[in-house]
Amino acid sequence: MTGLLPEGFHDRLPPAADAAARLEARVLGHARLYGYEQVDPPLAEFADELATRLKAGGVRDAVRFIDPVSQRTLAIRPDLTAQVGRIAATRMGHHPRPVRLCYAGQVLRLSGSELDPQRAMRQIGAELIGLDSVAAASEVVQVAIEALHAAGITGLAIDFTLPDLVDTLAAGRLDPATLETLRDRLDAKDAGGVAAIDRRYLPLIEAAGPFERAMAKLRSIDAGNALASRLDGISRIASSLDGQVALTLDPTERHGFEYQSWLGFSLFAQGVRAEIGRGGTYTVLHDEGREEPAVGFSLYADPVLDTGLGTAERTRLFLPYGTRTEEGRTLRAQGWVTVAALEASDTPQAQLCTHTLHNGEITAL
Amino acid sequence: MTGLLPEGFHDRLPPAADAAARLEARVLGHARLYGYEQVDPPLAEFADELATRLKAGGVRDAVRFIDPVSQRTLAIRPDLTAQVGRIAATRMGHHPRPVRLCYAGQVLRLSGSELDPQRAMRQIGAELIGLDSVAAASEVVQVAIEALHAAGITGLAIDFTLPDLVDTLAAGRLDPATLETLRDRLDAKDAGGVAAIDRRYLPLIEAAGPFERAMAKLRSIDAGNALASRLDGISRIASSLDGQVALTLDPTERHGFEYQSWLGFSLFAQGVRAEIGRGGTYTVLHDEGREEPAVGFSLYADPVLDTGLGTAERTRLFLPYGTRTEEGRTLRAQGWVTVAALEASDTPQAQLCTHTLHNGEITAL
Repeated sequence: MTGLLPEGFHDRLPPAADAAARLEARVLGHARLYGYEQVDPPLAEFADELATRLKAGGVRDAVRFIDPVSQRTLAIRPDLTAQVGRIAATRMGHHPRPVRLCYAGQVLRLSGSELDPQRAMRQIGAELIGLDSVAAASEVVQVAIEALHAAGITGLAIDFTLPDLVDTLAAGRLDPATLETLRDRLDAKDAGGVAAIDRRYLPLIEAAGPFERAMAKLRSIDAGNALASRLDGISRIASSLDGQVALTLDPTERHGFEYQSWLGFSLFAQGVRAEIGRGGTYTVLHDEGREEPAVGFSLYADPVLDTGLGTAERTRLFLPYGTRTEEGRTLRAQGWVTVAALEASDTPQAQLCTHTLHNGEITAL
Repeated sequence: MTGLLPEGFHDRLPPAADAAARLEARVLGHARLYGYEQVDPPLAEFADELATRLKAGGVRDAVRFIDPVSQRTLAIRPDLTAQVGRIAATRMGHHPRPVRLCYAGQVLRLSGSELDPQRAMRQIGAELIGLDSVAAASEVVQVAIEALHAAGITGLAIDFTLPDLVDTLAAGRLDPATLETLRDRLDAKDAGGVAAIDRRYLPLIEAAGPFERAMAKLRSIDAGNALASRLDGISRIASSLDGQVALTLDPTERHGFEYQSWLGFSLFAQGVRAEIGRGGTYTVLHDEGREEPAVGFSLYADPVLDTGLGTAERTRLFLPYGTRTEEGRTLRAQGWVTVAALEASDTPQAQLCTHTLHNGEITAL
């Protein structure tokens, strides 16, 4: 009985747990104002079903167990987006499109990453299923930003990526093996290696950084206009944000965006090294093999809380032993957090109170 | 890809998932007003550690798996109270007493019961650690009732039980084996069997039902005053509730109260057969073997939602294609849920809207 927890698992104590609940309520509350309705899939489901909807290999990182009832393997979800996609494709398959859904819940992973050792996390997000247009992506990015602002997060930045850009540029030019080599060298920012394949891809390495500058570079290499629709699209999303947040572009960034189609984005907040959320366009799989376009974002509570959200001051009003029930009720109705003495010997100090009640008067301590 | 879920697992769709989130926010919000601060333990922890804090056999019903990092067995929590007790005893062990904590989270069980086949549930509750006095229990019961009222639940009833009553009555009179037989026969309401052990326990079978009548029966059999302090205590709790809810007493009820010490209670709501929550007094185990008194309650979201909470009407305002960003923002600030057309062809009907905007005017559909 050491009270120790496994690596990657932690207790959230007061006031951080209160702050996490507040964050979640504000993000979901904001998404709801835009018509996103909450869904709540179960913590576990059939592993093979979940596997078809997770990005490649996702189910290998899930806790799996044999269900004594069905005698089949169940998996604890390592990600909520796949389950929301399942709901949209099956039980809400006949709902008119687009469907706007939001969610919050625990996810569990067998292994943490070097960047983020957490294995039990709270994922909060919103998904728009049925469209992956510029208008749809603009709305989703806008909801994410406003929700974070509503939760009190400042100094937001968005890093956009174009996950299929290299494939699109190279279409018909490179064989699959060379394309894969090119992508690896772009990831490694290996200019010599990239030039050895084709010097025309070299500017991609340079086309990363502040949004406008990176876009100008990308436009300059898009001689055949293969990228025009993507570049126009991402420009329109950026304009719709109207200077609310700092924007960067890292057009060949693939890491963690294997699941995304034409657009991906990471959300950052001032003073937090890790990304606080991410999103992009993707497809939802239907029974008959049909793929439906979608766009969404997810936030992870822990890095968001690292922005200092959890440091609000507590106000607690001590009710001395014998305070009338009615008096406490009146004070709570006024918004006070009241802490009642349950024994005559109890004190405001022992109850970590900031205020106390004496002859009907409230005194700050 | 059938979209089917394992038995005992279910998706919560709109508007039930929104209602569940609202319920949780109101219950926790109300507990917070009484000074209960939120904690959020992780979904899984070391199985052997959890086992010492769960009621007998509890960990056998938990999903367990080998953690590849620690090479030890972890368990997904089947109950949150044990984790809250761990936090109170370890990381918050030096916090002045009583400690008031609240929580909400997913729990997972390998097997459902006949009465409740659900295996993935959302548990919401509050615990007061450091006291199990009448004053402490009264506060906890009061918070539970007010929180349910605040969440819109009506027709509440509380069924009290005195889990250690039979043991107390029989102290020094019966050997352990006979006591166990007596308890089984009382559970089965087997009057003949009870009389065969000792006719004096017969009135216990009768002393169940409406609170005042049951109490009078219990007082009549408490010739030696062995029960006086318990009966006075439960009477004072009942008086403190001041007619807010219907009260019953089932003094020998043991089922599900194996964990409780002198007091247990079940919460019921009009029109819902299953109990919507339960609570009582118990002890929290400390490192050095010391036991600390505590009292708390837990609610389960599903039966609470069965009270019809999830049937509130949705109001959704359609913003025709091209509506100015600023106009949507103003309407959301007024509290409207807005659903923006993302294509010129989109309609209020397709977006399940109740209202639409036309030339700046809102029209009900």
